[in-house]
Amino acid sequence: MILNRALAGQLDREDPLKDFGQKIFSEDKPMVYLDGNSLGKLPVATIRQQEELLHHKWGTRLIRSWNEGWYEMPISLGAKLAPLIGAGEAEVVYSDSTSMNLYKLAFSALQHQKGRKKIVSDTLNFPTDLYVLQGLINSMGNQHELVLARSEDGMTVSTQELERVIDDDTALVLLSHVVFKSGFLYDMEKVSALAHRKGALVLWDLSHSAGAVPVELNRCGADLAAGCSYKYLNGGPGAPAFLFVTEKLQEKLESPVWAWYGDSDPFAFNLKYSPAKGMKKFLVGTPPMLSLSAIEPALDLILEAGMDRLREKSLKQTQFLIDCAQEYLLPLGFSIGTPVKPEMRGSHVSLRHKEAYRICKALIDPDDGSIPVIPDFREPDNIRIGITPLYTSFTDVFEAIERLLSITKGRIYERYSAEKAAVT
Amino acid sequence: MILNRALAGQLDREDPLKDFGQKIFSEDKPMVYLDGNSLGKLPVATIRQQEELLHHKWGTRLIRSWNEGWYEMPISLGAKLAPLIGAGEAEVVYSDSTSMNLYKLAFSALQHQKGRKKIVSDTLNFPTDLYVLQGLINSMGNQHELVLARSEDGMTVSTQELERVIDDDTALVLLSHVVFKSGFLYDMEKVSALAHRKGALVLWDLSHSAGAVPVELNRCGADLAAGCSYKYLNGGPGAPAFLFVTEKLQEKLESPVWAWYGDSDPFAFNLKYSPAKGMKKFLVGTPPMLSLSAIEPALDLILEAGMDRLREKSLKQTQFLIDCAQEYLLPLGFSIGTPVKPEMRGSHVSLRHKEAYRICKALIDPDDGSIPVIPDFREPDNIRIGITPLYTSFTDVFEAIERLLSITKGRIYERYSAEKAAVT
Repeated sequence: MILNRALAGQLDREDPLKDFGQKIFSEDKPMVYLDGNSLGKLPVATIRQQEELLHHKWGTRLIRSWNEGWYEMPISLGAKLAPLIGAGEAEVVYSDSTSMNLYKLAFSALQHQKGRKKIVSDTLNFPTDLYVLQGLINSMGNQHELVLARSEDGMTVSTQELERVIDDDTALVLLSHVVFKSGFLYDMEKVSALAHRKGALVLWDLSHSAGAVPVELNRCGADLAAGCSYKYLNGGPGAPAFLFVTEKLQEKLESPVWAWYGDSDPFAFNLKYSPAKGMKKFLVGTPPMLSLSAIEPALDLILEAGMDRLREKSLKQTQFLIDCAQEYLLPLGFSIGTPVKPEMRGSHVSLRHKEAYRICKALIDPDDGSIPVIPDFREPDNIRIGITPLYTSFTDVFEAIERLLSITKGRIYERYSAEKAAVT
Repeated sequence: MILNRALAGQLDREDPLKDFGQKIFSEDKPMVYLDGNSLGKLPVATIRQQEELLHHKWGTRLIRSWNEGWYEMPISLGAKLAPLIGAGEAEVVYSDSTSMNLYKLAFSALQHQKGRKKIVSDTLNFPTDLYVLQGLINSMGNQHELVLARSEDGMTVSTQELERVIDDDTALVLLSHVVFKSGFLYDMEKVSALAHRKGALVLWDLSHSAGAVPVELNRCGADLAAGCSYKYLNGGPGAPAFLFVTEKLQEKLESPVWAWYGDSDPFAFNLKYSPAKGMKKFLVGTPPMLSLSAIEPALDLILEAGMDRLREKSLKQTQFLIDCAQEYLLPLGFSIGTPVKPEMRGSHVSLRHKEAYRICKALIDPDDGSIPVIPDFREPDNIRIGITPLYTSFTDVFEAIERLLSITKGRIYERYSAEKAAVT
């Protein structure tokens, strides 16, 4: 099979999800967007929903809207997300940011696991996960130790390494289900079982896996999870995050943040806090409704497409990307920073190159009239290509490969400054 | 002077802020909205701003928008709010919810005040403020005691009572600058000085005062503050909250929540947290941009109107309301649940009546073709009338008085169920 634009076009025509592209807002100027793993695109339905939210719900119904769906939305949206992450409807709520939810859940877990002094994560984890743990250790009086499982290949963490670091003193294991740089996908079932054998609880960060790969929290025996909705779930920039606590742990855990949205009877305005039953006690303040509401039409799209079909297309596309990279880019100093085994990767692929930053700039801001191709850069040398099967086409992927080829082969990147922008 | 509709009309014609009403979205059906102290109305400019945000910033620029204003917005919006609350530009940031900010600030203060075991608040405070403190005490090992200053009249807290409860063992005093039920306005300068004489820090909840009364944090010697933007600031339902730390305390305080947005170099993706200088270290996760951005045009409106003019109109309107209530409503079993002295009240007035809940329902859902009048109910017997001078007219106030009169005199409220809605 020849890896070319014609093949990409054929794969697009055969794509059972091809009509979903029309349900996504299309910018005026052509662009190849491969950063849905960082900020998902805008669903057309969200535009209509936000108009109605502004004019009718906020503008006209005003305070009455709290009695007409807003108040319950952290819970109703959690129930809507639940099947996408293999959770029960009463096990998921929307609240705060991912970092804040990791904080609440990790604190709860450490309190529950009193006596155990070790927390395990890995060197590939997104820094905020580690920072939250470091902050907790500091504010709890430095009685715990954070131990990071190491990666031998810079992409994956082996089961043996996890077996080495998780022991009988381990209170909590916090890992990203899909690793943010390499796209490595942990075997959630295997790791959860490994932790449970030692009596540790596992907290999964689903930021790079919700909406990207099938997640089966309950089948895999996950205890706790949190994640964002602004990547593959297309919930909008900085969309509120979700958190999950497996049913059997809900009554045993206590949030460190007691606040009115988590009270059992908030409109009684009692002076003494009384936590609500179930997941509601993990809610904190009044949720940001413009952002929270935007998640709903986005989840509807993912539910309509179906996680199985999305995963099938994602794997085909990441494979196509890897095949093309192997064929065209490896000779130019690129290496593939993502596991090539399908069951070991999420929905983005890192291509590594020593000039990655400048190549990225050249892709994003072409100075020769080319179509902008938008991946993102991650230190030190990763170009992350995010595949969002809901709207990414095979032609998009091939376009990126061609641009990478011409920018690198023609040393076009040399025209770009190596000085980093505030946000990379 | 005869308190009637003609007088209200005259006062409206003389109102120097009368043109601001046109800058607020107007629903199709007539309505008298007196709940801006709970959810402020929608500025017209916000509609345009949200359209641009959706189509251009999210829809078209996508991830690039983080480099085009989004990333800095928690800080730039804080600087914009600062003059409205008497703070320096580098003393305020936007982040999370009010409850979450109270948690971060109270935790920081208690850590800084190690050895002191008492926390002071009052029985009139909004419950979430007390819940946050109760949760902190619990999670910090029950070494602190929460002592609540009592109210003799159910409306105000006396200086003598504060002097009684604040002592040399007091670490922190947390009070609402304007009390949520009675509208009582604390003398921030006097209370801050009182606390400082005992070595206590003061944390002010500005939720009912920002945008409602002139707030002068620095002039009054405030240490810490937090508040919401969805009431008098019109930032939208559940709009993100702000927090303030006086400059000289910033380096001494440490947030309990360490996360990537508060790191000194977040895009280096270092494995070890290194807090940013100044207020940035109090930021946590990626902010919800649809909600956060909506605050900007709303603040612009308040800045344009000016806090002095807003306060002047607010005091005239609350006085008009109190005068009308005294004339027409006291004979019908109402009492005034708000201090009548101007310097002791914020911008809402509570009218108390034993049938308050049903009277409120009759105002909101008229069954006789009257215009809906929307205040809110607060347990056990308060009808809160929110004056938002940016868009409330004297005629609105008089309309509410007339409706209260006819509903109560005609016992129309008896047609309404006493069963409470989920959100009151």
